[in-house]
Amino acid sequence: MPAPSDGPLVSDLSEDGLLARIFPLLPLGDDTELAPGDDAAVVSARDGRFVVTTDVLVEDRHFRRAWSSGEDVGRRAAVQNLADVAAMGARPTSLVVALVIPGDLPASWVEGLARGLAAECEPLGVGVVGGDLSGGPVVVVAVTAHGDLGGRAPVLRSGARPGDVVAHAGVAGWSAAGLALLHAGRTELDRELVGAHLRPVAPLGAGPAAAAAGATAMLDVSDGMLRDAGRLARASGVGVELDSAAFTGDLERLRAVAGVLGVVAERWVLDGGEDHGLLATFPAGSVLPEPFRAVGRVVAAGEGTVRVDGVPAPARSGWDHFAG
Amino acid sequence: MPAPSDGPLVSDLSEDGLLARIFPLLPLGDDTELAPGDDAAVVSARDGRFVVTTDVLVEDRHFRRAWSSGEDVGRRAAVQNLADVAAMGARPTSLVVALVIPGDLPASWVEGLARGLAAECEPLGVGVVGGDLSGGPVVVVAVTAHGDLGGRAPVLRSGARPGDVVAHAGVAGWSAAGLALLHAGRTELDRELVGAHLRPVAPLGAGPAAAAAGATAMLDVSDGMLRDAGRLARASGVGVELDSAAFTGDLERLRAVAGVLGVVAERWVLDGGEDHGLLATFPAGSVLPEPFRAVGRVVAAGEGTVRVDGVPAPARSGWDHFAG
Repeated sequence: MPAPSDGPLVSDLSEDGLLARIFPLLPLGDDTELAPGDDAAVVSARDGRFVVTTDVLVEDRHFRRAWSSGEDVGRRAAVQNLADVAAMGARPTSLVVALVIPGDLPASWVEGLARGLAAECEPLGVGVVGGDLSGGPVVVVAVTAHGDLGGRAPVLRSGARPGDVVAHAGVAGWSAAGLALLHAGRTELDRELVGAHLRPVAPLGAGPAAAAAGATAMLDVSDGMLRDAGRLARASGVGVELDSAAFTGDLERLRAVAGVLGVVAERWVLDGGEDHGLLATFPAGSVLPEPFRAVGRVVAAGEGTVRVDGVPAPARSGWDHFAG
Repeated sequence: MPAPSDGPLVSDLSEDGLLARIFPLLPLGDDTELAPGDDAAVVSARDGRFVVTTDVLVEDRHFRRAWSSGEDVGRRAAVQNLADVAAMGARPTSLVVALVIPGDLPASWVEGLARGLAAECEPLGVGVVGGDLSGGPVVVVAVTAHGDLGGRAPVLRSGARPGDVVAHAGVAGWSAAGLALLHAGRTELDRELVGAHLRPVAPLGAGPAAAAAGATAMLDVSDGMLRDAGRLARASGVGVELDSAAFTGDLERLRAVAGVLGVVAERWVLDGGEDHGLLATFPAGSVLPEPFRAVGRVVAAGEGTVRVDGVPAPARSGWDHFAG
């Protein structure tokens, strides 16, 4: 989905002129006490604390303009940051965006980016409360997101205890499958999976719900199920046992495309990054909040390791955003 | 000050390997409730609100690696964001950093950047509480900074009233003069001015002090005295009268270098960006907190405009970070 080539380029506009096109598209947010326009914004933090995380997307590393529209990139930049906030058990309140753009980028691409940010933020009452803009050789979108814990303790990676249920909310492997379709030039095979890569849907509401339901540990599955389960296992000093049967739905969903591309679907499910689901642990017998489903259990043995159906998972690295 | 070429390059290390070099260099901060390492950090906000601002530095736009060491860039990235927090009257508490780096960058440059951030943050009790790292074609440093208002109202740009004193804290024109020396290849003429460009020193404590002293308006002078005074004038719906005599100290400091380079020093003082001083207004008769000094007054006439010694300032644009 290349950006439309009509309309002015970024280099045809002044910084103020470009900002004047973007600002009206951005949501104010329910917790914004002072909107952008001064040296800084002011966001309420009734909890007396705030959660903060930052993630950056770089053109030709994390996305290609030939594949992703500005709106796609805006949505993804928002979702991956909001998912990190949700993974602490917090309700997202606000984000700020530092944007680097080449002069030959259509201004409409930047407007699309703003619309993509707004599309993810506005329904949640999240405000886009600040930004900075610079020229540069490639598009870089650095988002910082904030959230409110609502009086609860943050849900860390380190709280899993032997006997806990391991639960997952969201899809597994869909983003990797969509990316494989894009690389293969076969997007017509399954546009839903392509969309799952370009515009991942994270179960953001499940984060605070998990915290309220007593989740003992939680993280955003951004780098692959095995890699992120391994992080939880190491941080908590426990073993994580996953049941591949729990991912039958994802495996069946991906099997046809995997067959055409000559890939084992299980690899996408276990190693694929950027789905932005939530992996959490709950005390045994907990009623899991929707849409969490049990995918395994926490054990004392095999501290810091992950087993799938009792077999040690290979020491896989999943995604290394910095490599390549 | 080119980075040393010995030691490993970024591409010689894994993401985790590079992070392991950086993390120990970063300060935790007095207000950090949960340090980096989970999906997000947690920062206290006892005020029940937080101030937030973001600014990005792009290689070959805002700095050159041939001129700036990693530590210089880290210091500047911290200061320009902390100055925005201070300009709201807030005490900075924390920042996060999204960093894009080419693979052929020496790892020592990145360590220098971390040391530069730490050098500005640690003395203030400010924590570097999060980050993200990606490869990319040029260095991009996107910092988001947060502050605490301590129960006071934020000091906006819009609160200046006719009769107020206009006051300035910090230097004016030094950064522009230093940049001119770098461009001219004459850094030996005045290394202090070059340093004022590479590692600007902002009067950060003066921001909360101004708020406590009853400042009616305030902003960070990042884009030049005239341009930023014009913003204050427009936001407040007032005229701003500046007295050039108030800048005699800066003018005399810059005159020798200006003479050699064939520049009118007044232009640096009035139009030069990136000094990161604070421009504020106070009710007449206020005792100005150190190091503020009176530089003019607010008038009802000439709404939205700036006069210098009674003469309308040309409609100058100062810095446009996006242009060029």
